[in-house]
This record gives sequence, C-alpha cells and structure tokens, in this order.
Amino acid sequence: MVNAAGRTIPDLKDLGLIGFRGIEAEPLQKTMASRLVRSTADYPADGNKRVESLKAALKNAGLRDGMTISTHHHMRNGDALASQIFAAVRELGVKDVVWFPSAVFPCHEALIPYLEDGTIHHIEGSLNGPLGDYASRGRMRGLAILRSHGNRYRSIQDGDVHVDIAVIAAPSSDHFGNCTGAFGKSACGGLGFAVADSEYADHVIVVTDNLVEFPCAPWQIPGNLVDQVVEVDSIGDPAQIVAGTTVLTSSPERQRIARLAAEFVSAAGIVREGWSFQAGAGGISLSFVVYAQQIMEREGIRASFARGGSSQYLVDMLEKGQIGAILDGQTFDLDGVRSLRENPKHVMTTPFNSYNYHTKGNFASMLDCAVLGATEVDVNFNANVVTHSDGRLLHGIGGWQDALFSQCTILAVPSLRNRVPIIRDELTTLCGPGELIDVIVTERGIAINPKRGDLIEAVNGSGLPLKSIEEIQEESERLAGGKPELVQREENLIGLVTWVDGTVIDTIQQVNTQS
Amino acid sequence: MVNAAGRTIPDLKDLGLIGFRGIEAEPLQKTMASRLVRSTADYPADGNKRVESLKAALKNAGLRDGMTISTHHHMRNGDALASQIFAAVRELGVKDVVWFPSAVFPCHEALIPYLEDGTIHHIEGSLNGPLGDYASRGRMRGLAILRSHGNRYRSIQDGDVHVDIAVIAAPSSDHFGNCTGAFGKSACGGLGFAVADSEYADHVIVVTDNLVEFPCAPWQIPGNLVDQVVEVDSIGDPAQIVAGTTVLTSSPERQRIARLAAEFVSAAGIVREGWSFQAGAGGISLSFVVYAQQIMEREGIRASFARGGSSQYLVDMLEKGQIGAILDGQTFDLDGVRSLRENPKHVMTTPFNSYNYHTKGNFASMLDCAVLGATEVDVNFNANVVTHSDGRLLHGIGGWQDALFSQCTILAVPSLRNRVPIIRDELTTLCGPGELIDVIVTERGIAINPKRGDLIEAVNGSGLPLKSIEEIQEESERLAGGKPELVQREENLIGLVTWVDGTVIDTIQQVNTQS
Repeated sequence: MVNAAGRTIPDLKDLGLIGFRGIEAEPLQKTMASRLVRSTADYPADGNKRVESLKAALKNAGLRDGMTISTHHHMRNGDALASQIFAAVRELGVKDVVWFPSAVFPCHEALIPYLEDGTIHHIEGSLNGPLGDYASRGRMRGLAILRSHGNRYRSIQDGDVHVDIAVIAAPSSDHFGNCTGAFGKSACGGLGFAVADSEYADHVIVVTDNLVEFPCAPWQIPGNLVDQVVEVDSIGDPAQIVAGTTVLTSSPERQRIARLAAEFVSAAGIVREGWSFQAGAGGISLSFVVYAQQIMEREGIRASFARGGSSQYLVDMLEKGQIGAILDGQTFDLDGVRSLRENPKHVMTTPFNSYNYHTKGNFASMLDCAVLGATEVDVNFNANVVTHSDGRLLHGIGGWQDALFSQCTILAVPSLRNRVPIIRDELTTLCGPGELIDVIVTERGIAINPKRGDLIEAVNGSGLPLKSIEEIQEESERLAGGKPELVQREENLIGLVTWVDGTVIDTIQQVNTQS
Repeated sequence: MVNAAGRTIPDLKDLGLIGFRGIEAEPLQKTMASRLVRSTADYPADGNKRVESLKAALKNAGLRDGMTISTHHHMRNGDALASQIFAAVRELGVKDVVWFPSAVFPCHEALIPYLEDGTIHHIEGSLNGPLGDYASRGRMRGLAILRSHGNRYRSIQDGDVHVDIAVIAAPSSDHFGNCTGAFGKSACGGLGFAVADSEYADHVIVVTDNLVEFPCAPWQIPGNLVDQVVEVDSIGDPAQIVAGTTVLTSSPERQRIARLAAEFVSAAGIVREGWSFQAGAGGISLSFVVYAQQIMEREGIRASFARGGSSQYLVDMLEKGQIGAILDGQTFDLDGVRSLRENPKHVMTTPFNSYNYHTKGNFASMLDCAVLGATEVDVNFNANVVTHSDGRLLHGIGGWQDALFSQCTILAVPSLRNRVPIIRDELTTLCGPGELIDVIVTERGIAINPKRGDLIEAVNGSGLPLKSIEEIQEESERLAGGKPELVQREENLIGLVTWVDGTVIDTIQQVNTQS
C-alpha cells in the first residue's frame, strides 16, 4: 500500500501498525494503556526497596524470555548500564529480550555480542552508529521501529509498546526509589526520558551509584512508581555526555550556515521581544544559538524561553537574562546540569511536556522557530534524518519529527556531504513531511517553502541569499558532477520509521552488501 | 451486613461499594481508570487556551445535568472559586451537579443555596462545619462519601469516581495552563490535591488571578493536561489559609498533651538521629512540633524529614538544619508558602506520593511517628475523627486515615470535650481501626495499645504517666458523672466513611432533629 506521504508500505497488521494518514489524523486509540493497580501492602512499610544486585532485581521482576526491557540515554555516550543489564540477563539464561532504549550511542556497540548470542532479540527503537550499521547489514532479528522522543512517550501511553521491566539509571536515589539526575558523581541533568516507563512499565528498577538518605529531594521520578533499587559502582561516565552531537562546529562553511539561519530569523521578524526558539543537537544548531545571541544582544531583545538540549550557550543566555526560561529536554553538558540543579527557571521537561502528540497540546508547536539538521531533503521539502545516501541507518531520530511542529522549522544543512548533494529528487528515507518544513538553509543560500508566502514576503529585500530549492539543488549537482543516485537496497526490511502518531511513514531496507 | 471492623453496613451494591475487608486486603480493581487519548491537533498550536469567563469555559466543557465537577482546598477558608463556579452553573441552567471537592471549609456555607435550589445534587466528599451540619440534618440529597486525601486520589485513579470537569484554582498560570501555587498574589503553596483530577478528569479548567508569561516555570501542574484557562479577579484570600486548624493551642491542658506526646516519643527512643515525624492540623499537633523541636535542640538530634501541613514551625526547623526536608502535603501558612518557593528541600508532595494506598508504597508508612487528633476513641483504640458525640458530621477527614500507617501513630486528645468523655465503649462513627493506632495521649495520662509491647517496654521506668486506656476512661467518666450515651439517630443514611482502599468502614445517620 501507498501511505499518505506517497511511500510504499508493506502489510504490517501483524505488528499492529498502519501507514501514515497525514499530519492531522485522529488518534487510533480511544483510551490510554491500562495500568495495573498496586497495593502498598506489597511493598516494604519502611520504604527500603534495595536489593543486592541487578541480577537479583531482574530475577525478582520475573524476567522471562521475550520480555521487553527499557533503558534511557541520559548518560548518552557515557552509559554503562545497558551492558550491565544484558550481562545479567545472559547470566540468568534468559533469551530473546526486546531492548527498548530511548536512544543508543556508539558506546552501545558493546551490546552486539548479546544480539549475536540471542540474549537480545532486537532493539525496538532508534539506532545509530555501530548498531545502526549492524542492523543495516541485516544482522538483527526483528525490526528497528524508529520512534521520535515524543512518539516513544506516546507509544507507551497509548499502549503500542508494553514495557515489562524499565531499568532507570539514576545519578542519585534513595532506598525508596525517589531519584534525580541533578546530583551525584554521575549527574546528567534531567531524567525525563524515563518518565513514561516509570508510569507504565509493569516493573521499575532504579539503579544508582549514589544512594542518598531518604528523601532524595527534590526528586524527578517518585519512588512511588519504583519496585526495586539497586546500588552499583558506576552507572556511567558523565564526561561522555558531551558526545558527538553537542559541540560547536569549527567548519567555516557550517558556521556560515548557522549565521545565515540566525540572520534569516532576524530578517523575518521572528527574533522579536518575547520570541522562543529551539536548537537541536549538532554543531550547526548549537552555533545558531551563538549567532542568535549576538543579534539579541545587539538589538536588546529577550526571548521568553528556549527549548533544548541545554548547553553552556543556553545557560549563558539564561544567566544573562536573555531568555526567560530553559525548557530542558535533555542536558547536553555539565553547565546544563549545574544550571538545571540551581536555577528554578531551568526546568526539566519530559517528552510528555514537550513532544507527546497525544495530549492537550505540547511545547513544540509553541516555538517561534526550530533549527534542526537533516541528512537529505527533497525538492518538496520532505526530509530524512536517519539514513545516509548509501542507505545505512546511522543517525538517531531524536526529537526531530516532534520539533517539526514549530512555527518556523529550519533545516540548516550543508549542500553537499562527502561530495553527495543533500537536496535530491527522491529521499533515501522519508522522516518528515515537507508541509512541516519551512526553510532550508545551506552555505549556498536559503530556500523558503513556497507555501510560506508570509516568510517569503517578510525577508523580501533583506539582502539574504534567497534561492529556490531547485536552484540550490542544481548548483550542488553541478559541483558534484550530477544527480545522486537512489541507492539500491535489498528487499529485506530492517526498520520502520514511524510518525509522531505511531503510523508508518517509511521503511528501511537492508543495504546491498554486494555493492 | 457486618464489615471486618464489626460495623453494620447496608447493601451498597448500587453505589458500587462494599464493606471494609481488613487493613491488608487486595485491591478490588485490577487496572486503573481508563483515560481518553487526546490529540494536540485539537488544541491551539500557539498554546493559548484562554477563554473569557468561567461560564464560557464550563459551557465549552460540555457541562450537563448530573455531571461531576471537582475543586480543591488549597485556599482553605479563603477559597473564592467554588461560589463562582456554581453561580455560573446556575446561570447556565444546569442542575444536579455532583460537587467533588478535596475538602470543604466554613466559607463554603455560601454553597447551601445551590444545594437548596437543585444546582448541586450533593457533595461527594468530606464535610465539616456548616455543610456538615446541613447534611447531618438530612437536608442534602445523595450521600456524603467521605474519603481521606489518599483515598480521594485512589478513587480517581482506580475509577471509583469519574470527574467530568476539574476546575483548578491557580495562584499563577500561563495561557497554556502550566500553573503553580508558589507565586502570585494568592500564593497558597502546593497544588497537590489537584494532581489526580488534572490527570484523570475528562476536562480540566485552570482559573487564575495571576496570568504570567509562558512558561510559568517551575510549574506544579503541566499545561499539557489542561483544556482551558480563565482569568478572574480573585481566586480567594490567602490570608484565610491559616484557618481553624492551623494555630498553636493556647490552652494549658492541650499544651500539656502536646508536651506529653513529645516526651513520649523521646522516652520511647523514637526521637533519634535521622528520625521522621508528621504532625497534622490542629493546635495540639502543631504544639507537639514545638516541643519536639526543643528536645531535638537539647539533644542535638536531626530529623531526616518531616511531613506536614507545612507551617512556620517546620520551616524554622528546616532552616536551622534540624530536619533534612519537608515533604509538604499542603501549605498551612505563608511561611510555608515562602519556603516551598525558595527552598529546594521543601518539596511539594501530592496525595499520590504521600498517601495513595494503591501504589508501590507511600510516605505515610515510613514515618517514625504521626501525631494526630480525634473526636472519640474506644477502649480498643478504634477512633473517630469526623462526627461529634451528638452525631453531627462536623470535621473533615483530611489525611487522617492515611497517616495512621506510620510506625507509631499517636492520638493526642483531651480526655473530655464539653464535659463529654472522648474515650468510650462504642464510637459514634468509626474512621480508623485500632490495630493502626498505637498510643493515646491525654492530659490525664498516656495509654499504649497493648499490642505494642515494644513501646510499653521502651518507656518502662521513664516516669511518664502511663495508664491503661480503661483507667483514663474511668477517670474521665468520674469527672463527667458517667458514661457518655451513644446518640440516638434517625434511620436515614446521610454519609459513608470509606477506608483508604475505598471499602465502607462505617455509615453516618441523620441526627435526631426531635431531640
């Protein structure tokens, strides 16, 4: 069948999935997932839920073959918990576990042996780096079902995904399970990605390397949702939180892109008193923040709030009074952790607040602008953020789809990557529909989506290098020596890209290992 | 039928209720209440949910005859919202609304005309003062179903009570509905009693007299759960928060009771490094805190946490480092409000965290001691907290039942009230089973529940005036000139006292208006 985005989707009834139906379709579910009623009579009256090891906790939780275990990426590339979990699962002789992480990082290459030996059946979630490459080569059993951060929350809330056992890495916890990421030797900031799991999983295990006196106050996740608490030597290395996608770009070309994006929002009148913005992970987005700050400083403009990925750059603006609040989805560096802990206007948000599409509004659509990356864009402004043009699934989907709902969504991207034009006639993988993508900023110029006549008019006469998307495409094709070809892939399906409402917007095939 | 506490209960199948089954019975429900899935597509993309009036908001919410509207008592006797709501309901011509407040106060006498004219069918909840008297005289249609704070949360969570429209009075809110009680001219502290309603009601209206720029950060209730926001001139008078039950006792007799309670916990070894305590509303309980503080100061002891009703007394201890944290259930005075706002170790908790019996443990059972009041106690340590010996329903049930789960529950009560002995052979109304009540402290002496041999041994030789409960009963009967008679009441049922799990522990009859 062909879905509402024009992509061909196989019959996925067995997985309970259907194709994308357009961006404003009604929810498929009438009621949220049912949750079991518990009784305090079944938990220790003194609140002490400590058990001696992760292995014992998994056993107490009734771990069986085929169950789903979830984890979260607050420690980013410093995570040391997932490996400990699956070592314990293997020791218990349990097989075919579905791993449901909120994101994976290069450090999780260490889990490939558990996929190989059958301990893990498949990873249900966004993949990147070594695990994405592994799946792309058809090595993983089961499909990588890619869900954005908001969609991951929604999928748990709506009951698409049932988590049997959630394991939450907590930089500080008390013996009851009240826990936070704001304190402790492994402080990572917010624990927002674990909130859905804490609410809906059958069994919740908190693992900490900093057990504190009750109450661990203020907590981010209440112990009332927690079954067991385990103390370990280390949940990870917080220095590795600043990994990959959270350093400023040093490339002059990418700096130009970031500067053009900032000049665009300024010229379009978006940078005005009380405006709001979001900058995603990635060097260009982070550099955009620095340029935007310069404009705001020059013009004496204050933003009402910024969404992030909090970083030293946003923290600096908050502390200077240039933004009213940081609504923090995940903490990208240690300045962010400190600010989240100390500044009441630096608020931990969760994918529920920011991104869940199935609630009474979320923060994403309130943003005046969001500056995001992409791996490919087509001439209709549709975009890809997960696969490379060689077909390999190398990037996490993050909150990218959710953030597309901002009032002005800008993809700030180089026109060529490894000499391959990123503006194409057809995408390798569709992740976001063009009707939600307003502007493409490249080092060669800025293309505004024709449906945004208001933006075109607003920047008329600004002196910015405005071009049609076809013009930028032609220029880059000229430089590259022709159009990029659509990669040939195997028939074998290795992943599904789902939309924020859980429908399937595209498929990902195994790469052609002969080519 | 006779329930597990020995009280006769009529057949309540039509109400979906059954009799008390003992204190550790399994939950009646397997799964929590189902909740509707919403879509952000149905809410304003810019987050602005303001409507022009409460009346318009109720109309938009689809208010119909017989629906249930909930409110909350954070403004205590200063509440000005309930009257505004029912004035609007009456203007809309809607009848037979069930009002589901988290508590009522004397100011709510103003709602009697709405009960009289059929706007309100009945009040489903704890009653006291003028409304309790009104119901006691058989004037209210429908039953007052008394639920403790924890049981109110549980009843919503488990689906016993379905709230059609929750109206939340918010001292500060933004246009999206992110709201808090910590700031604003009507700042009242925490909004914890509204959390269940915000999560489970079909429709949520936030009413504020301080609309702030988005985001209202930090919020206590997220706007993602809110349908509409209404601005009004005033939600109430915060000076009236300190109402009735939140001033120190000035009676020498009651001060002696408070002092004896403090000396008891000290002698029993409960006041030790890292201990925890809860003192309820009421002059004796508050005075207990002051005496306990003196002991702690003298002996250099620090408590790990205190639960309250936060007041200037707890705040003082927190600021002096005598307690590690305040887990605040409701804010009893303006010092409490300030501290909640400024001190990260003064944490807003909700009935979910503190008291919900149907979750993975709550804070109540972790307390080393709780000092509470009562209107009557029987010789088996069963107690009443809602009716007077004349049968009238004059006191709210509050979190009293929930707090009974502490490791040492002390009822600190005068032996006589208006010359009527409070220790009786039989209670007018049973609210709490004696197996959860450990100590009765009166001005005439201290009676320890015989099942607490450990406590009896611990205070052996302490010089405290220890007596059997029968001795205190006899002394007070001698002074009163005899045993109190059990009041004769009409057959007509006017209320039900439910236990923390939702079962019916006792009934309340109409008072005999002839006598």
